[in-house]
Amino acid sequence: MQDIKDKMPAEDGFYMPAEFEPQKQIWMLWPERPDVWRDGARPAQKAFTAVVEAISRFELVTVGVSKEQYENARRQLPKEIRVVEISSDDAWMRDVGPTFLVNESGEVRAVHWGFNAWGGITDGLYYPWDQDQLVGKKVCEIERIPCYDATDFVLENGSIHSDGEGTLLTTKMCLLSAGRNPGLDQGQIENKLKACLGVKKVLWLTNGMDPNETNGHVDDVACFVRPGEAACIWTEDETNPFYPVAREVYEELSLMTDAMGRRIKVHKICLPKKVITLGEEVQIETKEHTLERKEGDVCIASYLNFLILNGGVIVPQYGDENDQLALKQISEIFPEREVVGVYTREIVYGGGNIHCITLQQPRGIKRRMDYEENN
Amino acid sequence: MQDIKDKMPAEDGFYMPAEFEPQKQIWMLWPERPDVWRDGARPAQKAFTAVVEAISRFELVTVGVSKEQYENARRQLPKEIRVVEISSDDAWMRDVGPTFLVNESGEVRAVHWGFNAWGGITDGLYYPWDQDQLVGKKVCEIERIPCYDATDFVLENGSIHSDGEGTLLTTKMCLLSAGRNPGLDQGQIENKLKACLGVKKVLWLTNGMDPNETNGHVDDVACFVRPGEAACIWTEDETNPFYPVAREVYEELSLMTDAMGRRIKVHKICLPKKVITLGEEVQIETKEHTLERKEGDVCIASYLNFLILNGGVIVPQYGDENDQLALKQISEIFPEREVVGVYTREIVYGGGNIHCITLQQPRGIKRRMDYEENN
Repeated sequence: MQDIKDKMPAEDGFYMPAEFEPQKQIWMLWPERPDVWRDGARPAQKAFTAVVEAISRFELVTVGVSKEQYENARRQLPKEIRVVEISSDDAWMRDVGPTFLVNESGEVRAVHWGFNAWGGITDGLYYPWDQDQLVGKKVCEIERIPCYDATDFVLENGSIHSDGEGTLLTTKMCLLSAGRNPGLDQGQIENKLKACLGVKKVLWLTNGMDPNETNGHVDDVACFVRPGEAACIWTEDETNPFYPVAREVYEELSLMTDAMGRRIKVHKICLPKKVITLGEEVQIETKEHTLERKEGDVCIASYLNFLILNGGVIVPQYGDENDQLALKQISEIFPEREVVGVYTREIVYGGGNIHCITLQQPRGIKRRMDYEENN
Repeated sequence: MQDIKDKMPAEDGFYMPAEFEPQKQIWMLWPERPDVWRDGARPAQKAFTAVVEAISRFELVTVGVSKEQYENARRQLPKEIRVVEISSDDAWMRDVGPTFLVNESGEVRAVHWGFNAWGGITDGLYYPWDQDQLVGKKVCEIERIPCYDATDFVLENGSIHSDGEGTLLTTKMCLLSAGRNPGLDQGQIENKLKACLGVKKVLWLTNGMDPNETNGHVDDVACFVRPGEAACIWTEDETNPFYPVAREVYEELSLMTDAMGRRIKVHKICLPKKVITLGEEVQIETKEHTLERKEGDVCIASYLNFLILNGGVIVPQYGDENDQLALKQISEIFPEREVVGVYTREIVYGGGNIHCITLQQPRGIKRRMDYEENN
């Protein structure tokens, strides 16, 4: 299953479906590096396992794990979970995995992007990232899914959301960051996204909530919940450090129209009431080429980093006063899905949450591409 | 996909199909260790690739490869081949892989055996073998095939052949060897084989042709070619070191009846005319816990180590005077399949051949188990 190098997905009629469309399975990776996860990653492994258990109530899950951790992961994970050997530099499947595409006939393909640990030598989070770079390809090989080679372009799935009807949502903070594709301007990047993801219109939010880690991944601040509708983070508390970005994202989204010409309806989702920081009990090893995490660091904790599944939504919980409110708000947005909270404070300590550590593989389905006719 | 521990395959109606039954794909591993394969395994990698190319004319192939060799293997192997990450201690998929089973309904399961490098600390060929031990499980995980845990019993697929109708062919030299299951006698081993492989009768040849390496794997000396018919090695040359064992195998086989009560018809397949030895050009690195291979060692070169595929048979070739005769004899046995020779002298230098480095995964098909009614 070698790369397709001579064509672009859009030319072949392939496009990125929305997360809320039918899925075949969820992909994840197993955490192990002690310079990202405290205590030899044991608490993180427990938290990842809780996420796996929640997902497996709704869908198949495949977890990629290194040779060294294989038996440990196999023992900890539920028996119905598929555990395969995939080496990686850390455990963020969303960002290192491929972007799966579908076409009208129900076929599935994928794009394999360049990955440089969220900014390469400019402002990446660790070095090296050579094993992360191979993950997308290995996932496609296991599934025998044909893969377009776009390794000349740096992109993480956490920085894009598709509505499955021609619209892509992203942030300038991330996609125009100095560490990703500095040789390309916004127009060139937009053209690359259109060619690789089969989208017609790219909606550019200005900022995400973490300038320093992912450089503002959209999946912490906003997402599509169905065609024509999005959700975003929100707080009324002006002292919350994320108040300005929440307000900005809401206002920008509310003024946007999608590829189908619809003005986007925006749902607000609360932030944790209390800002989460790395406490003194969270001691993480330091290593020369890894961004240091130290006491007092503000964690990028957002309920928006949920994962949509066939019939379900898995939502981060922090032990915060707003946990229940977040579940209620998300349940109202997805009345047709069961909303399940999972306590994931440990994953936030490592720099992400449920959406960041998972990647949905669509189940290709035949359908009419309505937006083609309307544009 | 965790192990089934409470039941035995035979109780569940599963049994080992014959190699000549419909297959889904072939599994292989990628050679790399320099203390088995000369010149950093580069020549062996070329030879394995030639085998892959021959097989891929008939069937899907999946090659398991270590993290370190992934990109090298991906580059050398044809694009249509699936390359997945599977660590191992060497490259003998036949022996470290699972035994696939089928049932009447067309379901596929597998047995995962204990593996100890052909004899463990008694007379095994290398130490450690912990990664080899995990290969069978990893193959089943990738395919989501339920797997029976028989890791308490040491067995390699190279030591057994099934006719798919209740008969298993093996050798006492191997299965009763001191390094495998010394606590079990022949009757107990036979019961284990019947319970795990769903067979009714075990045919015991006395010897194989390599007492020291695999301790006489059957797949170098004899195999089933269709129900009621077998093939075995043969030479008229009394000076050939394998003359005694060839004669013994032929005579023993000719007197056997299978589980269906049929007297087995035996086809003779020539040996290479000239005994193949390790020449001085074959310099293999030595390592403390690996059996040393040195100049003058007699290679276990047999045309019988062929692989049966859907519509094809892949046969070893040595640059020997008898190469063509072997192809002719095998073509006469399989008039309905295309017989393809591949030059594999390099693989013999490492201790095996085409059958040893491959493993067929059956395509489960619905069928009547006729032998049930006749026994």
